[in-house]
Amino acid sequence: MKQDKDLNYNLPSGFDIELIPSEKRLELHLLNIISTVFESYGFTPIETPAVERLEILQAKGNQGDNIIYEINPIVTSSEDDESKPGKSDRGLKFDQTVPLAAYIARHLNDLVFPFSRYQMDMVFRGERAKKGRYRQFRQCDIDVIGRQDLSIFYDAQMPAIIAEIFSRINIGEFIIRINNKKILQGLFEFFEVEAEKIKLCIQTIDTLEKVGKQRVKQDLQLQGLSEEQSGQIISFIELKGTVDEVLNFLKQKSSIIEKSSIFAAGVSELQSVIDGIRKLNVPETQYCIDLSIARGLNYYTGTIYETTLIDHESIGSICSGGRYDNLVGMFVGERMPGVGISIGLTRLLRKLLDNNILAPMSANPAQVMVLNLEEELIGFYLEISKKMRDQGIRVLTEFKSIKIGKQLKKADKLGISICLIIGSEEYKNNSCRIKMLKTGEQIDTSIDNLNDELQKRLKLN
Amino acid sequence: MKQDKDLNYNLPSGFDIELIPSEKRLELHLLNIISTVFESYGFTPIETPAVERLEILQAKGNQGDNIIYEINPIVTSSEDDESKPGKSDRGLKFDQTVPLAAYIARHLNDLVFPFSRYQMDMVFRGERAKKGRYRQFRQCDIDVIGRQDLSIFYDAQMPAIIAEIFSRINIGEFIIRINNKKILQGLFEFFEVEAEKIKLCIQTIDTLEKVGKQRVKQDLQLQGLSEEQSGQIISFIELKGTVDEVLNFLKQKSSIIEKSSIFAAGVSELQSVIDGIRKLNVPETQYCIDLSIARGLNYYTGTIYETTLIDHESIGSICSGGRYDNLVGMFVGERMPGVGISIGLTRLLRKLLDNNILAPMSANPAQVMVLNLEEELIGFYLEISKKMRDQGIRVLTEFKSIKIGKQLKKADKLGISICLIIGSEEYKNNSCRIKMLKTGEQIDTSIDNLNDELQKRLKLN
Repeated sequence: MKQDKDLNYNLPSGFDIELIPSEKRLELHLLNIISTVFESYGFTPIETPAVERLEILQAKGNQGDNIIYEINPIVTSSEDDESKPGKSDRGLKFDQTVPLAAYIARHLNDLVFPFSRYQMDMVFRGERAKKGRYRQFRQCDIDVIGRQDLSIFYDAQMPAIIAEIFSRINIGEFIIRINNKKILQGLFEFFEVEAEKIKLCIQTIDTLEKVGKQRVKQDLQLQGLSEEQSGQIISFIELKGTVDEVLNFLKQKSSIIEKSSIFAAGVSELQSVIDGIRKLNVPETQYCIDLSIARGLNYYTGTIYETTLIDHESIGSICSGGRYDNLVGMFVGERMPGVGISIGLTRLLRKLLDNNILAPMSANPAQVMVLNLEEELIGFYLEISKKMRDQGIRVLTEFKSIKIGKQLKKADKLGISICLIIGSEEYKNNSCRIKMLKTGEQIDTSIDNLNDELQKRLKLN
Repeated sequence: MKQDKDLNYNLPSGFDIELIPSEKRLELHLLNIISTVFESYGFTPIETPAVERLEILQAKGNQGDNIIYEINPIVTSSEDDESKPGKSDRGLKFDQTVPLAAYIARHLNDLVFPFSRYQMDMVFRGERAKKGRYRQFRQCDIDVIGRQDLSIFYDAQMPAIIAEIFSRINIGEFIIRINNKKILQGLFEFFEVEAEKIKLCIQTIDTLEKVGKQRVKQDLQLQGLSEEQSGQIISFIELKGTVDEVLNFLKQKSSIIEKSSIFAAGVSELQSVIDGIRKLNVPETQYCIDLSIARGLNYYTGTIYETTLIDHESIGSICSGGRYDNLVGMFVGERMPGVGISIGLTRLLRKLLDNNILAPMSANPAQVMVLNLEEELIGFYLEISKKMRDQGIRVLTEFKSIKIGKQLKKADKLGISICLIIGSEEYKNNSCRIKMLKTGEQIDTSIDNLNDELQKRLKLN
């Protein structure tokens, strides 16, 4: 076959998210852990199409940073096409939240509220490509959406879910940092910052880790705070301590509590969240209160979360989220408060692999490979493979007559741990040889005992 | 919150593939069955991005019927965007085969051949929207790709895989119809149809079920066959009988076999496929040889498959595929023969639901709902929910203090079968009430026995 040398078969920039089989199997393994934990808390799966109307994607004002891809059919001469030239009215979703809002409006009468859903779809963002930033990626999101109100205990479940997932994924120590945006808001109210400037101040705090406290102090002064006030704010948000120490510190701020009811509400919510987390038995080594996390995104209105790996801070937040009051009710025309978290799995998986925190799995899911020693035994190989499959064993049957050494090498490359060797001699004697690739161990057994021998060894793996 | 009344939050035409939770859970259940069977035969998962370069998507000549969507970032004033005005060079994939060919070229050295992969991604086609035709849909594909050659026994595994999947999905009786395109090709060679017209003749045969045999007879005559020859061809392809009867019929066509080596090769391949299927223990009620199936698509070169539900023929083929010689090697510049099958899951699921062949699952994955009888017991509800989760039980905890009747109704609507009722009285006595929603049965038990009682009842479900 002639190769078309001029064709560039590489993926377009930013879409190079493709995994080789051993990595893809790891992703599926992680997705399975994540969805299992989500479902154990009663989150139900949904999926929305990649495509929505542009008017919906562009409805939410504060997402201007995400460049939307519009889609257009390439018009051909065929009569049977979607002959729709001109301006597109459809685009690819850039997050799961706008589609969730539309989904709720579309299926309002089919849903039970509070509606707890998870979603692990791909999203698309036409941002400038740079290393580690993708234009298509998988986001694993959960959200609970209430009608009119939503119990604070849903906020308490989120850290328990995060902790359960990352403990099961087994990626070393992590810390879930919890704060409540009302506390920050109340703090600025106390210092009599004008309402419209509070947002900017909170965004400034959000840059603390990136730019350092000197810069944040300067930036706060640009918003009209005095040097002393800015210093007080920095000391406040930098407070370190056990969960109880921080809670006590907050409760003792009676001058702020008296002046700002929103501060008081934030402290009380934080207390409830911590109470709930404790009842859900999350080890205190896995979470803390961090008054400096601010989640610059304007839509968060209460509890906020960020999760980092303790030995790999450079990876950044691996799971974040929070409480919002006004994000998903817009198409229904109702107040629908929600709380949610998100794992950017495509980016996280790449980082975990690149930093050797997780290793790829075997390239093939088969547990046993049946070698091909004699062409005329292929019928028997098929038969015995099927019998193993009937016992729940995943089996790859080799049909190519190549040297046995090459076949073993192939099994090894695929990460298959057991090879089954049956030549004409074994076939005559109704026996077979089981070869364990990692140890080199070989066992000769009768075909009748094969299943027992395999089950024993597969459990060992 | 004010609703924006002017916004149309419905999905664009052809993208209305969205499922309500009880249906989405069924889809995940089917995907789980399908991937489990795929993996039991050593197929490994891959996924390719939705986006490829247009030059790649348009490289394969014979896919002009699928209108490709190009994507373009909507250019905004932001400096940080993908400022790429003008003609797009990227589009959405319309099948899994072109991306597979590109994937193989991209990862050639990481793959082991024959390469057996499965893929269950979404594909996009800008076809004219009509009922039951979607512009985005999930396709579940497996393919085995060889380098230079590929054993015919891979063709034999495909019907075994199809049979296993549809037996497990439990959708009633089905039949896998098997043919070999070489037999049809040889038949027309025998009648001395010119090479370039054979394709058209095979496409004509493909229309038999749709237009009837009189029309096919006429159309064959338009290709230069005599009335008698056309009649002979119709009788040939209409032959009914057991697998052995059809094979014997073919082997007795010595005049064709002598004249057409390709006919002889087709019969011999078909014999091997049937031999393999028998070794794989597929019941003969689930497959047959049907010489009239032709799979109009030009790229098939050997074995072809179509699967239909016996009691629901109107649904059409639920799984089809075949052997191709020249479909995926194009970017590598090598002969890479393959064999594969495809399940159009989005369309199939919709049909199975609409025809009441499968029923939706429960709307929520939770097995137990902990009712909220007393606000001050919420801490205890969280605690006991966590304990159940630690035993592998999926639990939804209710935080809203509404009437118990309403809570039971909610559990029922979500399809949760067991409710746990703990009021202040039960709490004091360290006891609880288990209510089975379907039977109305109620059991009072101590908290210490709760897990045993639940495990017993969950097994019954």
